[in-house]
This record gives sequence, C-alpha cells and structure tokens, in this order.
Amino acid sequence: MGRVILQQTTPQIEDIVEILDQRDSASVAILFAEAHPADIADALESLTPAKRPHAWIHIPESARGEVLSELNEGVFKDLALELDNKELIDAIKVLDIDDIADLIPDLPEAILADVLFAVDSETRTNLGEVLSYPEDSAGGLMNIDAIAVRDNISLEVVLRFLRLKDELPDHTDTIYLVDRQNRLTGILPLEKLITGKSTDPAKDHALPNPVSFHTLDDEEEVAKAFADYDLVSAPVIDDSQELMGRITVDDVVDVIRDQAEHDIMAAAGVKEDEDIFAPVAKTTQNRTIWLGVNLITALLGSWVIGQFEGSIQQLVALAVLMPIVASMGGNAGTQTLTVVIRGMSTGTISNRNVFNVLRKESLVGVLNGFIWAVVVALIAAVWYQSWSLGLVIAAAMIANLVMGAIAGVCIPVFLDKMKVDPALAGGVALTTVTDVVGYFSVLGLATLFLL
Amino acid sequence: MGRVILQQTTPQIEDIVEILDQRDSASVAILFAEAHPADIADALESLTPAKRPHAWIHIPESARGEVLSELNEGVFKDLALELDNKELIDAIKVLDIDDIADLIPDLPEAILADVLFAVDSETRTNLGEVLSYPEDSAGGLMNIDAIAVRDNISLEVVLRFLRLKDELPDHTDTIYLVDRQNRLTGILPLEKLITGKSTDPAKDHALPNPVSFHTLDDEEEVAKAFADYDLVSAPVIDDSQELMGRITVDDVVDVIRDQAEHDIMAAAGVKEDEDIFAPVAKTTQNRTIWLGVNLITALLGSWVIGQFEGSIQQLVALAVLMPIVASMGGNAGTQTLTVVIRGMSTGTISNRNVFNVLRKESLVGVLNGFIWAVVVALIAAVWYQSWSLGLVIAAAMIANLVMGAIAGVCIPVFLDKMKVDPALAGGVALTTVTDVVGYFSVLGLATLFLL
Repeated sequence: MGRVILQQTTPQIEDIVEILDQRDSASVAILFAEAHPADIADALESLTPAKRPHAWIHIPESARGEVLSELNEGVFKDLALELDNKELIDAIKVLDIDDIADLIPDLPEAILADVLFAVDSETRTNLGEVLSYPEDSAGGLMNIDAIAVRDNISLEVVLRFLRLKDELPDHTDTIYLVDRQNRLTGILPLEKLITGKSTDPAKDHALPNPVSFHTLDDEEEVAKAFADYDLVSAPVIDDSQELMGRITVDDVVDVIRDQAEHDIMAAAGVKEDEDIFAPVAKTTQNRTIWLGVNLITALLGSWVIGQFEGSIQQLVALAVLMPIVASMGGNAGTQTLTVVIRGMSTGTISNRNVFNVLRKESLVGVLNGFIWAVVVALIAAVWYQSWSLGLVIAAAMIANLVMGAIAGVCIPVFLDKMKVDPALAGGVALTTVTDVVGYFSVLGLATLFLL
Repeated sequence: MGRVILQQTTPQIEDIVEILDQRDSASVAILFAEAHPADIADALESLTPAKRPHAWIHIPESARGEVLSELNEGVFKDLALELDNKELIDAIKVLDIDDIADLIPDLPEAILADVLFAVDSETRTNLGEVLSYPEDSAGGLMNIDAIAVRDNISLEVVLRFLRLKDELPDHTDTIYLVDRQNRLTGILPLEKLITGKSTDPAKDHALPNPVSFHTLDDEEEVAKAFADYDLVSAPVIDDSQELMGRITVDDVVDVIRDQAEHDIMAAAGVKEDEDIFAPVAKTTQNRTIWLGVNLITALLGSWVIGQFEGSIQQLVALAVLMPIVASMGGNAGTQTLTVVIRGMSTGTISNRNVFNVLRKESLVGVLNGFIWAVVVALIAAVWYQSWSLGLVIAAAMIANLVMGAIAGVCIPVFLDKMKVDPALAGGVALTTVTDVVGYFSVLGLATLFLL
C-alpha cells in the first residue's frame, strides 16, 4: 500500500535548518534520507554558505545529484567550489543528460574536464550534442530519452518493445513514430496502447494535431506553447525533420518560473540567481552597478532642477511640490509600462495594434492627469494660498501623466527593437523621463507664469 | 501519418487580426477552424472590444467553450455581456467541470442560473462540489475525472477496465488505488500496466512516495509541489482520506503564470486581468485608486520638505540634491525588498533566519551607502564648491541606504504578518520610507550643520 503524504514543504525545511543549527547529525541524516531532493535543496538555500558543506555530507549519495540540479545557480556555484571534487563528480555523473548540461556552465573550470571524463562515452557524445545548442533554445532544454518506434508497426509490437524496458523515462505520455530515416511522422499517446486495438498500425492512433519544436526554437516560445496547448511532453526535430529529443513539462515549469523570477528581479536591478546568504561584499558588488545607473538618471533630474535655482529661491513652494508631480508621473507611467511589457511578452501587443495602445494609454493619462491635477491644485492652493500656483502644478501634472503614458508605451517598444530586455531597463528609463519632465514642467511653467 | 506543425504562434495571431481588419469572413473562418482555441483566445485579446463579437461568430462551435476558458478574465467578462445568451451557454456547458467552475464567478448574474440549468444533473452536483471550495484551494483547482480502482485487483483487471473506456481523461499518467471506502491507498503509474506483470496486484506497483493534496491546501503550495516534485497529476483527498478528484499539470502551469502575472502587475498597481483594449474610462477607474494612494505618500514627503522651507531658501542646493538621496535609497531598498519577497515566497526566508537577512542587507546598505556617498559628495562639493555640503549629502546617503535595507526586510515581513500581499503594497510603503528619510536626513543635517 502506498504511503500517502500530505504536502508539508515549509515545516520540513524549518526542521532541517533547526536540527542543523543544533548540530544533531544523526537526525539530519534521517530527515535527508526521507526528504525529496527539491526539499533538501530548499533547506541548503536557507542556510548560510558556511553551513552548507556541513549539511551536504548528510545527504544520501543517491540524492546528491538531484539536489545539485535543484539548487539556485548562485548557491550551486559557491557550493561547487567548497565540495570535494570527487564527491561533486560522483553526484553529477549519474544525472540525466539535460540536467548535466544545465550544471556545466556553472561548474568550476578545474573540474569541468573531469566531469566529461567521468561519464560514459555515449553520455559524453549526447552531452556534446545538447551543449551545442544555445542554453535558452529547445535543443538546450531537451533530453535525449525520447522513445521512438517505426510508424508502420502494430500497437502490439510497440507494447512488446516497451515491455522489454523495465521502466519508461519520466513523463513518457507519448511514443514518437518515425520513418526509416528517423524523421518524425507522428506522436502516439501511451493510453492508445491500452485502449486501442492491438493489431492496428501505430500510425492509425497518432495524435491528429501534434506539436513539435525545432532545436533552435526559443525556450519562451516553447513554454507558451506548453501552457497554451496543455502539453506534457513534445518532440524536438532538426531541419531535416529528424527526431533529436523531447522536452518535458517539468523542465518547462522551471523555465516559466525562472522567467517570472527574472522579470521581477531584473526590474529591481537584482540578479535572479542571487544567493540570499551570499557574502556581503559579493552582494554589494552585484547590486552596486544598478545604483550607479540610477545615480546617473537622478543627476539628470537634479541638473534640470539646478537650471531653476533662482526660481526656487523666489518661491520655495516649488521645491516642496515638484516631487509630487514627478512621483505621480512615474507611477502612472509605470502602470502603462507594466501592462505594455506584459502585452508584448504574451503577444497581445504587436506592431499592428501598438498605436491603438498608445492612443488609449495617452487618453487614460489625460483623464487621470485631470483628476489628480484638480486634487493637487486644491491642496497647493490651500497650502500656499495661491490659485495661480495651484494652476501651474495642475498643468504640470497633466503634462507629466500624459508623458508617462507615452513613455510607458514607447520605451518598451524601442528597447525591444534595440534587443534590450524591457523588464530590465524599462523602469529606470521611464522614471528618468517622468522625473525630468515633472521637474521641468513645474519649474518651467512657474518661471514663465508666476515669477 | 500525423501532420507535424512547428510552433509559430505569433504569426498566426497576426494573420487572424489582419484578416479581421480586412473583414474577410471566409478566411477568418478557415483560420479559426484550424487554430488551437488558445491561439484564437490570443487573437481575440489582440482586438478592440468592439471587434471581438464579430470575430466570435467565426469560431467553430466545438471550440467556443475552450476559447472562453483561455481568455483573460477581464476580456471574458466584457465579451460575455456582448454575446447572445444561448450561444454563451451552449459554449460553456460542454466544458470540463473545473473549467466551468473557473468561468462562473465572471459570468453576468442574469445567465448564471441558465448555465446551471443547461448542464446535466450529475455535472450540476459535481459543480456544486467544486464550487464549495475556495477558488485558490486544491479543491477549487481539481477536476473530478480521476480514475480510481480497488487496490487489491490485478494489473490485468485494471487494463480490462481501462479498455472499456474509449479515451482516458487528459493527463492521465496515473490511476488511483482506493479501498472499499474510496479512501486513497496508492497511486499506480500508467506505464506499470505496460511494463508490469499482468497477474501482480495493482498495489504492488504503486509509487513508493506518492504526493497527494488536501482539498483545502493553498494553490500556491500545490504549484510549488508540482514544480519541486515534477508531477503531471496528483490526487486530492478530504479529511477522511477519501479521493475527491485530481489536479493536472496544465492547470498548475496556469496557476504559476497567473501568480507571476499578479506579482508583476500588483507591484505597479495594475489588476492582472486588465484588458489592454478596455474602454478608457474603465481603465482610468481601475488605475486611479493606486495613483491616489501614491499621492498620499508623495504628500508625506512634501510635508517633510515643507518643514525646512527656510533652510532651502538659504541654500537652494538642498532642493537640487535631495532627490538624489531619496532616489538612491528607494532603489537600494527596492533591491532588498525584491530579494526578500521572493525569498519569503519560495520559503528560503522564514522567521528563523530573517535576522541573518536583516544583518546582511544592512551591511550591504552600509557598504553601498559609503561607495555612492563618496561619489555624490565629490559631485556636490565640486558643483557647489563646498566640502561641508558634500559631507552632509554623504551622511544622508549612508543613512538612507541603510534605512532602505532595513525597510526592505521589515516591510514585507510586517505586511505578511498583517496578511497583506507584500507584492502589492511593499514597493509603495518602501519608497514612502526612503523619500521621507531621504528628504529629512538631507534637510535636517544641513539645518543642523550648515546654516
């Protein structure tokens, strides 16, 4: 009878970390022996770097490879430097080829050759094949464990062939049908072997609209197709339609999660594989460049303000109110920017309809500009007893919210054309625009009409 | 022979949109007849709301239900109001129960009862069951199409039972084993029916470490488990261990994508189901609240500046330089905030190690504060020919970057304790802190030491 466990991930991690803190080795070994490699990886990530090698020795040897491949890149890189080379190689060499290929770019160079020597020659050849594709392509994502049979044999023969194997590769929901030249001709769902008539030729039960990928297809396109078409696995073919391997949903789920992680982290100028417990010096170094970029954009805003020092001296209220206009423009612009970036990445926004988006977002900017211009004008007028000051702030507010909307549409479109990731550079470019326009419109209008 | 198609989603959408623009109905019908429902849904989302009902009539009736369930919520809600009620009901009633359950909360109230009458009584009962669980729970996510067999029968009998069915439900990679009381006792991989000895009892081939979920488990926990344990499907049980249904990976992929979408959109104050082409008035309304919240926080910053009007009048350079300090603190704080929110959501950061994170991030703040304090102090000193002004800006910079780091750790921890989504409120809370502290430290220190 199967033991049924309920999903209780977090407490398990907590237990492991607590027991490690108490240096209770025996209990750690027991916990690790029962835990899933992904949970052990989570526990390792929750530890400070110094403690991780101590935890490592308690991980059962059979689970070590999978633990490594579940680790965050940053954590893996550091841990790989700390571990005994032989232990590291023993752990890695038993993994699936796609998992080994994923780890290789992050391995210390010194042991890279040793890993390639440690695997058997067939694995080495296949590894060379997988590594020859870009990391973010279908070829880089695929595994070479696809089961293929000739398309003209009967279901019964397919069944007999499969029975020769003790176990099928994980996520085998389909068998691939090929011709003499190993060219993909169809996809046979596993269940047809059970429900189909055993004398039928395999190709009679092939899927009506099979989806396959080319080795050079982008992994984000692959992920979108898996999500849209509810796939569990899909074959990968080359130019001549030859079956090269297959992609499985578990790897696609990782791509989707990594992509989301990247988009969120990049917008804040943080590397998505940052180890939370990395040494202070390393983290500072990782993050400082972003702050430098931000400093340049902030200086641009300050330079604009500096052009109007005389005006500010005459009317200090401008210094008090100008950050409000800059901030509101930045926020409204970020709303537009976020919607446009998402729309571009899902394909909803394209060259064809981007002008519709621009027109609509600008109108939203005008409308929201008016709403909040009235509110801020009232506050300014009451605060400083000056209707003309209120009017200047209101006009600046409308100008900046419209500018924010326009920049929110144009910046990601432009960055995309320049092959720069909008998720990374869009936010900082947008707030530079709205800061500069916000300060300039408040101070410029005030200088023209109030002083 | 299966037709092998390469993944070319985007051009298809473009084609559909272009042909619709040309009002070439025959071509649209041909394209829709061949397209996957998910691609048709993408095409509908790329159209302006007015054009969508015109496109709808060309969608084959058999695909309409799936198209609806692939649509973004905002787009579905609007389209549902435009369509003929009978057409809408006919499209929905043929869907799987979990898909109907997903659409129901977004249906116009007027036709809700009609939908419930249109489905057969078994579906209605099951729908009541699924709808009784929270939308974001395992119960709300599950479908009731799990195939269960008694655990003591042989593989051969299981096979015969499955052969009676013409087709198995999508994503059936496992069969569930139950006892007399329908309590889950194990999970049998489908491939064991092919590779196992046919006289063996089914339970002998059950998975050694099956994962199951309770109906009330949170869908994010479910998604993490699917990703960590590489699941294709998993059973859902109730308190008494009775098998209630199963969750499949395609729905989990949607949960992961929706969650990522939510995190990205919420941080910018945009609803994740916003229809890019919704009417201007509606979009303005959706976004204006967020701008109002932002205005309040901006006013807080202005109020702080207002307390030092005299100082600014004496030294206008303060008005020029203070936004730099506020902005750098905001950016450094956002880096910490982002890392902490991700760490909390993956479980890497918990109560146990949050003080390690706080100490580390504060030190990063100090270090980055020093680096950029030196740079900004030099710029300020050269710009305004005043070393003492440079020193004040440097001190304020260090103070604000450390404050940003502390707030970046404490705000999400606090929000989480208060059951507020840190992805939604974290950013605005953080920049309020760094604006206030940034302005206050520049102006306060200058007032104390320079004037």
